[in-house]
Amino acid sequence: MEREFGKLITGKSIILRLEMKTDVIKFSDIVQIISDEGGDLVAIDVIQMKHDMTIRDLTVNVSDSLQIVQISEKVQQLNGVNLVNVSDQTFLMHLGGKIETKLKVPIQNRDDLSRVYTPDVARVCMAIQEDQRKSFTLTIKRNTVAVVSDGSAVLGLGNIGPYAAMPVMEGKAMLFKQMADVDSFPICLETQDTEEIIRTIKAIAPAFGGINLEDISSPRCFEIEERLKEELDIPVFHDDQHGTAVVLYAGLISALKLVNKSIDQIKVVVNGIGAAGIACTKILLAAGAKEIIGVDKDGAIVSGNEYTNPMWNWYSQNTNPHKSSGSLADVIKGADVFIGLSRGKILSREMVMTMNAEPIVFAMANPTPEIDPDEIEDIAAVVATGRSDYPNQINNVLCFPGIFRGALDCRATTINEKMKLAAAEAIASVISDDERNKYYIIPSVFNPDVVKLVRDGVVEAAILTKVARRIPREYR
Amino acid sequence: MEREFGKLITGKSIILRLEMKTDVIKFSDIVQIISDEGGDLVAIDVIQMKHDMTIRDLTVNVSDSLQIVQISEKVQQLNGVNLVNVSDQTFLMHLGGKIETKLKVPIQNRDDLSRVYTPDVARVCMAIQEDQRKSFTLTIKRNTVAVVSDGSAVLGLGNIGPYAAMPVMEGKAMLFKQMADVDSFPICLETQDTEEIIRTIKAIAPAFGGINLEDISSPRCFEIEERLKEELDIPVFHDDQHGTAVVLYAGLISALKLVNKSIDQIKVVVNGIGAAGIACTKILLAAGAKEIIGVDKDGAIVSGNEYTNPMWNWYSQNTNPHKSSGSLADVIKGADVFIGLSRGKILSREMVMTMNAEPIVFAMANPTPEIDPDEIEDIAAVVATGRSDYPNQINNVLCFPGIFRGALDCRATTINEKMKLAAAEAIASVISDDERNKYYIIPSVFNPDVVKLVRDGVVEAAILTKVARRIPREYR
Repeated sequence: MEREFGKLITGKSIILRLEMKTDVIKFSDIVQIISDEGGDLVAIDVIQMKHDMTIRDLTVNVSDSLQIVQISEKVQQLNGVNLVNVSDQTFLMHLGGKIETKLKVPIQNRDDLSRVYTPDVARVCMAIQEDQRKSFTLTIKRNTVAVVSDGSAVLGLGNIGPYAAMPVMEGKAMLFKQMADVDSFPICLETQDTEEIIRTIKAIAPAFGGINLEDISSPRCFEIEERLKEELDIPVFHDDQHGTAVVLYAGLISALKLVNKSIDQIKVVVNGIGAAGIACTKILLAAGAKEIIGVDKDGAIVSGNEYTNPMWNWYSQNTNPHKSSGSLADVIKGADVFIGLSRGKILSREMVMTMNAEPIVFAMANPTPEIDPDEIEDIAAVVATGRSDYPNQINNVLCFPGIFRGALDCRATTINEKMKLAAAEAIASVISDDERNKYYIIPSVFNPDVVKLVRDGVVEAAILTKVARRIPREYR
Repeated sequence: MEREFGKLITGKSIILRLEMKTDVIKFSDIVQIISDEGGDLVAIDVIQMKHDMTIRDLTVNVSDSLQIVQISEKVQQLNGVNLVNVSDQTFLMHLGGKIETKLKVPIQNRDDLSRVYTPDVARVCMAIQEDQRKSFTLTIKRNTVAVVSDGSAVLGLGNIGPYAAMPVMEGKAMLFKQMADVDSFPICLETQDTEEIIRTIKAIAPAFGGINLEDISSPRCFEIEERLKEELDIPVFHDDQHGTAVVLYAGLISALKLVNKSIDQIKVVVNGIGAAGIACTKILLAAGAKEIIGVDKDGAIVSGNEYTNPMWNWYSQNTNPHKSSGSLADVIKGADVFIGLSRGKILSREMVMTMNAEPIVFAMANPTPEIDPDEIEDIAAVVATGRSDYPNQINNVLCFPGIFRGALDCRATTINEKMKLAAAEAIASVISDDERNKYYIIPSVFNPDVVKLVRDGVVEAAILTKVARRIPREYR
């Protein structure tokens, strides 16, 4: 697994901390070994120096993760050298975690202390006790989202548990802040019991203005989200479902414009009916799609069949109006759009050739897409993937910062379907008709317009659907 | 209640937002009213101006909270004036909460994004999954404490609930950061059920290196803390109990030096046997005190009596060796030290006069001490209170930042009695023999030496008692 992810990394450096017996080994021998293995020594820091021993940090540029292992092993085998530690930049960036607490006002003297803490804070407490809604103005609730995971379905890594999930949730908290000035805190749960998770999130909710659920495995994620939506008065949003759905639909809006097709007239095949597949289907139905066919490991999901997975039963009753059946190869014939949320290399060039004219392919499996975009470059109208090293990356980072920025700004009680559609339309709108082409249907995550437009769309939709508890000044 | 707290505040300003009909009211009339009520207009900001209406923010210095009410009422009664909002500085400092998320490294480009988030973060996740202890180096667990309350016993305000408790917990998080560079996050719980609280804290523990319990009412606080100490491998510290005890003992070390008495030879009366009273008693027993008599509303707690409160039964069996009985007035005769954790004005000058020579009085009830220090100025050797406007403030802020700094630095599994004693000794040691006098037995919370000395004492005690999982570099 490490190598698979390692391959995706470019231009990195490692730092080797070496303890060397100066009477046994010459430093030049070490330099030689590193160079032989393809490493590029760029810096040396002497940490400690005694008469017969020195400790040095060597910074070495490497081209891939495999080199880290090779250099480390070779250096370790040298006589008189003790490899104390190997750090690469990714690990160094994680030392002590990636986020910290910041005071919005410093406590410089007794006067400040008495205001932000006892005794004067008591007046603020009393004001909130009299009117609980004031927690939205007088506490961090106004701007803070919990990023909650149980570590059961983290990235492509599976059930790695709450401790190992933390770096992802911290990264998400960074993105919330940097992209949309949303404060957030990672909560990784030492339980995978549905009821326990629901209870815990409800218990800690007072501090938060929203709950972002993350990397919770299916089917528990459905019940957890549904129940929390019912039982809490703040937005609850499972990003793996709805973030993916919003960005997918944004891409589809753009792609359909390119091929001049309308969403209510297309045939869509969704391959992989897990949490994200169902959310993508729901947003497309809400957007007006009429013919969606879901395919999972037993083939097309057809009404009349009985499924053990309750979500598949829902799916069979709400999609596939013509009761198409068979394998992916069968039902993809004549389809306008393929949406893959399954696994690598499941779609063939031959299948794409049987699709309708100007086929649109969203191959979003990670890290290996359902089909290599290069394979259908000449026959597909548009190809999008989940990866950053191909054009048209369907990346949730385009959605969640702006959607929560909007929800917090209008104190939304929920994030409903209209708000998600508005978010998708906002993302698609970042690209003008002139700019749009088959390699550019969706903006980059670093495009500075995205968050503002998504936020505005979400706020407007929340006001229209009457879930906003506050009308931001510019809409009054 | 508001006024009681308001009186403690000095030199504050309020901001009045006024909507004025310019054809009905002259601005000079408003200025006159404010001046008549004793307010001092120091700034005017025009927010909006139409032909017949203006909105202005008036900043007014006031001398106490009562003036805020009077000025607001008078202004509101004026014809043509709409008082949109009154903010005082304390409330303004709370707008949107007092803490925020800060990124330790910015995400400036695709390279950064791929390191702190997908795909490269996966390698860090895998490293933690292989060895869970790495969460202490690679996540915020290394430096982050949860400040947890259920809002059941907040300051002197009582059971005001989790929403109203938030400003206190945010203030605490600020102090952790500013005083000791400890990151922390306020968790206010929407439950007051003991089992539910224990479950919730256990469930969210993976992100944290320590748990600071705060403002949880007695007797639930005992079981919650004890159970969590048993069931978690990170320190759990109920600050209302142990923070108070540590600082009280620090003050007592200093006071006993002044009067040249030894802790094993003194008679101590503790008035108010709640959570803090019991914790203070425990630390004094651990420090070597032999004769401690607890007094609560039924008088002295004596072994042989049966108490409904299980902690009082514990108390009766572990204190009062001579089985002294009767009221506070009875048992205080001949006492060397009075420790009050009860309520205002319960101790009289006459009682103090019956104490042993050079009596030491810790009157820590808030906001009104058990006795006004001025009343016994001439007969007491030392008087300390919980208030900042008298000398010798017994303030938990002296303890919790340094104690958690130490616990985190050595990855302590717990905060044990030896670590608390070391913290108290460290606080007392800040004041040299030359500096010490009856008005200066304990350092200010702004004394820059406190945190470092407490931290060092706690780390050393943790190493000696074998609860440190990491030996900081300077002790290796």
